[in-house]
Amino acid sequence: MRLALDRRRLISLAAGFTDRATLPVAEARQLLDGLLHSAKDARPSLQYGPTEGDPRLRRVTAGHVRDLDGRAAGSEAGYSPARVLITHGSQQLLYMVAECLADPGDIILVEDPTYLVFLAIVQSHGLRCRGIPVGPEGLDLEFLDRLLAGLQRSGELGRVKLCYLVSYFQNPTGVTTSFERKAGLLELLRHYERAAGHRIYLLEDSAYRELRFAGPDVPSALAVRGHQDRLIYSGTYSKPFATGVRVGYGFLPEPLFTAVNRVKGNHDFGTSNLLQQLLARALASGCYAAHLEVLRRRYAHKARVMTKALRTHFPAQTQWQEPAGGLYVWARLPKRLRSGAGSVLFQNALTKDVLYVPGALCYAADPRRRKPDHEMRLSFGGATEADIRTGIARLGGVVKQLVR
Amino acid sequence: MRLALDRRRLISLAAGFTDRATLPVAEARQLLDGLLHSAKDARPSLQYGPTEGDPRLRRVTAGHVRDLDGRAAGSEAGYSPARVLITHGSQQLLYMVAECLADPGDIILVEDPTYLVFLAIVQSHGLRCRGIPVGPEGLDLEFLDRLLAGLQRSGELGRVKLCYLVSYFQNPTGVTTSFERKAGLLELLRHYERAAGHRIYLLEDSAYRELRFAGPDVPSALAVRGHQDRLIYSGTYSKPFATGVRVGYGFLPEPLFTAVNRVKGNHDFGTSNLLQQLLARALASGCYAAHLEVLRRRYAHKARVMTKALRTHFPAQTQWQEPAGGLYVWARLPKRLRSGAGSVLFQNALTKDVLYVPGALCYAADPRRRKPDHEMRLSFGGATEADIRTGIARLGGVVKQLVR
Repeated sequence: MRLALDRRRLISLAAGFTDRATLPVAEARQLLDGLLHSAKDARPSLQYGPTEGDPRLRRVTAGHVRDLDGRAAGSEAGYSPARVLITHGSQQLLYMVAECLADPGDIILVEDPTYLVFLAIVQSHGLRCRGIPVGPEGLDLEFLDRLLAGLQRSGELGRVKLCYLVSYFQNPTGVTTSFERKAGLLELLRHYERAAGHRIYLLEDSAYRELRFAGPDVPSALAVRGHQDRLIYSGTYSKPFATGVRVGYGFLPEPLFTAVNRVKGNHDFGTSNLLQQLLARALASGCYAAHLEVLRRRYAHKARVMTKALRTHFPAQTQWQEPAGGLYVWARLPKRLRSGAGSVLFQNALTKDVLYVPGALCYAADPRRRKPDHEMRLSFGGATEADIRTGIARLGGVVKQLVR
Repeated sequence: MRLALDRRRLISLAAGFTDRATLPVAEARQLLDGLLHSAKDARPSLQYGPTEGDPRLRRVTAGHVRDLDGRAAGSEAGYSPARVLITHGSQQLLYMVAECLADPGDIILVEDPTYLVFLAIVQSHGLRCRGIPVGPEGLDLEFLDRLLAGLQRSGELGRVKLCYLVSYFQNPTGVTTSFERKAGLLELLRHYERAAGHRIYLLEDSAYRELRFAGPDVPSALAVRGHQDRLIYSGTYSKPFATGVRVGYGFLPEPLFTAVNRVKGNHDFGTSNLLQQLLARALASGCYAAHLEVLRRRYAHKARVMTKALRTHFPAQTQWQEPAGGLYVWARLPKRLRSGAGSVLFQNALTKDVLYVPGALCYAADPRRRKPDHEMRLSFGGATEADIRTGIARLGGVVKQLVR
């Protein structure tokens, strides 16, 4: 992100920036003008509020996620506004959940690969990770079952606190976990809780859910009946609306809600009310939904531009899944190629002024396997179409040179 | 805060809310309208930015604090924009500094009493505190010297990592630490560093500095020459502008700046750009300064309303210092009275629908003394003049009944 911001000629396909051209400037201006029109309505937006969030935004958020789950939505209690915590971006929720649930040396289950900043959080708290392979339907549950059974045998199951799942258009692979897989995952966690001696939580990170441009939506784990007490669902308004307006949210069960809210009190005693009320208005007015339609068409187009360029410029052995949402293409190069930050490939790419995220950065430190080092995360979010074409062409040139 | 927000009849003299009537609604509206007028200028405000903050706001902030220190400002290097980290309220900076610098069991030096949410941070990280009495000029340095010498003798000096000082119109006592005292404090910390085996940082929290309505400003510890490497200066724009716009900042030396910025990357990878650019415009346009003048007159008036009511309604033995800034009056009752959350006084006050912060909450857990329990923190920030009068009258009635 820093490189992309500092070096103007560089084409960054690395950072998860969102599309610049579609940023809702006129919408934000109109919403804020309306919000600040009457002093009476406006004052609460410029004052402190409750740590857990603006009551209206919590209510609107509960309804919003319930609507996303649609007919699949299970018990109403799972979607209660009382379970909603508003945060300064969903990243803050991930941080606080890790901070509250895990002690140094504890084990977090993650997808292999997973969201790289979550790995940084985990590392900063001295936690260990175990990676679970990801197939086209999501997590490999049989693998997870064997893993947990092994941890039980070795006496380490008591250290397992949390499973972190990026369930929609996963960062970095683009995979969406099916509803059945989520239900199976929750059952599996429940199964091992008795032996673990405590709750094993699932943290479902839905950051990319609304950036869907192909196929039907998948209900969230909130819609799985009977598991509300072990589920944390995190979502964000930043990516679907504007990343400069950092507002995320989580649905949390008690007693975790209270614990995380106390930590939030210590972090910042509440997310900016001005941002919260802006989003509450965007959601209630339909502006959010309308903007999202624009965004989806835009990302669908940019994803096509990227995959077309990949087909044109990359060696035929390169593999990727056609994105149906999110911001990323996960490109798998021939295994003998190295893509890491110290590799010739990465350095040659930088020389050609193009930046990607080395795949190895998305793998947890897991003693059971070496980190794969032949993949790249390519973002079509922030770059223009022209830059996507040029960037992929440059990168393809570098890769082809090394394949020869 | 929760009680005040939930119970409409309650008069809260507890929470550190800011004045409602002077919230800059028209100013914010105009600034945001200008900011979002042209798509070209507006887009960066709706996009992610560097974790450490918007370059313009960092530059403006560096100049702003340098201007506050005026002729006293020492080396230019101390006020470099490169040392400025923008945070989601200054609370976030306090949290991250404690998180980065201290390990469980470490010792933090604090004023006795001090800012209660800082104590919550310290407690949540398993840190210990040692309180230093506060006189009219600030910290008692002779006491601190004896304390540090004692810790050296007991072999615990190596656990001392940080001294936290609310240097202007302190929360809760209203005391401002003199410049000479700050210079002396830094010398003292330096003196013990060799024996400690590491840097002992001073965290100067200037949260109330700009809410000054009587007397001259005091230069910050940034103006003390030769101590930049052990000084963290934290400030906020929320209280002087609008608490719903949560933007704070810190000046940090390396390598701490880099460490805290990495933690910030894990917390939220950057404060909302929209809020940052709003404040950069407020500062650059003069709107911030003009608003501050209004605010100062307003708080001066509300402080007078409160102390006049105290003189009228409280027993003559009650002691307080006339506020020259900030949001609080620190009232000392006769020592035999108890003011804690479990006390008859507190409960009777609640029955009369008036809330204050029990003084004991502002004292660190320190094994060397019992927490004083006969004081109250009274805020004139959020309540209207009428509510201040009524609240103090009710509270005075409750106190007088117990004094009899």
